[in-house]
Amino acid sequence: MTGSGFSAPAIAFSGSVIDRADAVRGDPEKLAALTNWRARLLRLDGLVPVIAADGGLEWGTLADADPAAELVFLGLAPDGRACFAAVDPALVGSVAPPNPQLWQVMSLLAPADLAVYGAAKALVDWHARHRFCARCGHGTELRKGGWQRTCTNPACKAEHFPRVDPVTIMTVEHDGRLLLGRQPRFPPRSYSALAGFVEPGETVEEAVAREISEEAGLVVRDVRYIASQPWPFPSSLMIACHAVADDDTITIDKTELDDARWFTRDQVVAAMQRRDDATFNAPPPFAIAHHLLVWWLNQ
Amino acid sequence: MTGSGFSAPAIAFSGSVIDRADAVRGDPEKLAALTNWRARLLRLDGLVPVIAADGGLEWGTLADADPAAELVFLGLAPDGRACFAAVDPALVGSVAPPNPQLWQVMSLLAPADLAVYGAAKALVDWHARHRFCARCGHGTELRKGGWQRTCTNPACKAEHFPRVDPVTIMTVEHDGRLLLGRQPRFPPRSYSALAGFVEPGETVEEAVAREISEEAGLVVRDVRYIASQPWPFPSSLMIACHAVADDDTITIDKTELDDARWFTRDQVVAAMQRRDDATFNAPPPFAIAHHLLVWWLNQ
Repeated sequence: MTGSGFSAPAIAFSGSVIDRADAVRGDPEKLAALTNWRARLLRLDGLVPVIAADGGLEWGTLADADPAAELVFLGLAPDGRACFAAVDPALVGSVAPPNPQLWQVMSLLAPADLAVYGAAKALVDWHARHRFCARCGHGTELRKGGWQRTCTNPACKAEHFPRVDPVTIMTVEHDGRLLLGRQPRFPPRSYSALAGFVEPGETVEEAVAREISEEAGLVVRDVRYIASQPWPFPSSLMIACHAVADDDTITIDKTELDDARWFTRDQVVAAMQRRDDATFNAPPPFAIAHHLLVWWLNQ
Repeated sequence: MTGSGFSAPAIAFSGSVIDRADAVRGDPEKLAALTNWRARLLRLDGLVPVIAADGGLEWGTLADADPAAELVFLGLAPDGRACFAAVDPALVGSVAPPNPQLWQVMSLLAPADLAVYGAAKALVDWHARHRFCARCGHGTELRKGGWQRTCTNPACKAEHFPRVDPVTIMTVEHDGRLLLGRQPRFPPRSYSALAGFVEPGETVEEAVAREISEEAGLVVRDVRYIASQPWPFPSSLMIACHAVADDDTITIDKTELDDARWFTRDQVVAAMQRRDDATFNAPPPFAIAHHLLVWWLNQ
C-alpha cells in the first residue's frame, strides 16, 4: 500500500489450504484407500454451501452423501484427511437457477473456506452439466477423482476435463481518469471494470485491447497484467489488467453496456470509501475489479 | 533488449490483422450479407494450412467449401472482405492424428498468417470435436458464425462456446540459475519451462506454485507474469510466469518429467545461441518458453 490509504483484501476464492494431491487422482488404489470413514464431505444444499455452527463450512462424512451421487476428490486437508464433494443427483443435467441467497451465504465465509467452496462449486457444477460426450453423444463417467470424465462408448473413449474459461477484466486510464462501465444487470449506480472472455487465437493483451475497442470504442496501449482470480460462476479465471488510452472519446456498445464513463481519482476515492457524496458505487471487495481500483489508487 | 544481446521475436500465433467483428457474429442479417461471392475461404487440408504460391496462406472463395461443411466466420480482412474457414465433414467426430508435416508448414508462414491460421485451426478443431450437447447428449448446431453451438433439443437449448484452456508455463530462478525440465516426448537434449493447466479454484500464481511443487518439489515465491500466447493445440492460452525458489533441491515427478535441472546463465546463453558446446537445446522461437529465457537473460 502506498499513498492512498487503501489496501487490497485477500483475493476472494483464492488461498485454499487443501492440497490438491494430483498424484492421488491418477492412482485408483490410493484414492480408494482415502475414500474411507475418516474422509470429509463438503455439505452443499444444491450448489449453496451449508454453514456450520462455528460459522465455517459444514463438513460431514461420506455416509452423508446420496448413495447415487458421484464423488469429487477435492484434495487433502492439512490433517491428511481426504476431502470430497458429492454431485447431487438432483443437479444432474440441470442448470442451477441463480440463487440470491448464495452471495449472502458466501459473505459469511472466511477467505480460506470461500476458496475451498469455490473450487468445489466449479467442479460439482461442471459434472452436473457434462453428462455426455461432446464428440459422440454417449454417456460419460467420472474418472480420476472427478478431474476427468471419460466417454463410455468403447469406440470413442474421449477424455473430458473440467473447464476453466479465461476472462480479461481491465481498467483503462486516460490523463489521470479511469474508465468504468456498467452492465444492465448491475445494481443502480454501480460501475466496474470492463470484461470479456479470451477467445481462441489471441493473447491476454490482445483480448484486453479488443474488449475495450468493442465495448467503448477506444484504442489502448501498454496493457499490463495486475492480478488473477478464480471465479466459480460457472468457472472462470479472471485476468485483471490495466491499459492506457491516448484518446477519451467513448463509443458505448449498448448491447453490452448501459453506460461507461471516465472517473477522476477523487471520484474513485469517494466511491471506494463508500461516502455519501460518491458519484457511483464501486465494485465490492470480493471482485477483482476492486483490486484493480486499489492498485490504481496506490500508483 | 538490455544487455544479453538477445531479442524476442513476435509471439507466435498472435498479431492477426483480421478484425473479429464481434457485432457481425450476433447479427444473422449482417452475417448473411457478408457470406457472399467476395468472401474469402481459408484453405485447409484437414487441419493443415495450404500454402499459396506467394508463400502465404492460400485463400479461396466460399464456392471451394464442401457444400456439407459448416462455415466459421473468422472476421473481416483489412479490405473489408469476410474471412471464413470450413469444418471439413471428414474431420467431424474425429480426433485429428498428430501431423508431423504441420510444424514444417507452419514454419513457412509469416507471423500475421500464423496468427490467422492458429485461430482458425482452434475453432475448426473445436467444432469437429463438439457435435453433441454435453448436458443432454442431443446434437448441436453452429450459431453466431461459429462462435457458439446450440443444442437442438427444444427442452435443452444449451449454448456451448469455443473452449480456451489457460495453461501456466514458468521458469524458476535460484541463486542465478534457472530450472528447466524435459518431458518424455521432447527431442533429445531439449529442455524447456515447466507447464501445467490452471485448475478450477486457483489463481495463475497458485497454479504456478502448485505445478512447480508437483513436478519439481520446490516451494516458490514472487510469481511474476511475463507474457501470454494463444496455442492452438488444441486451444490453450499459455500464461508465462517467472518465480523464485529459496531452495534448489529438486524432487522430480517421473510421471510428468524425464528430467529437470538448474542451468547457469552461461549454459542458457550457449543454448540460445545454438552453440556446439551447448549443454542442452533451448525451446524454439515460436514457444513462449523461448520468450521467458530471453526475458531472463535480459534482466
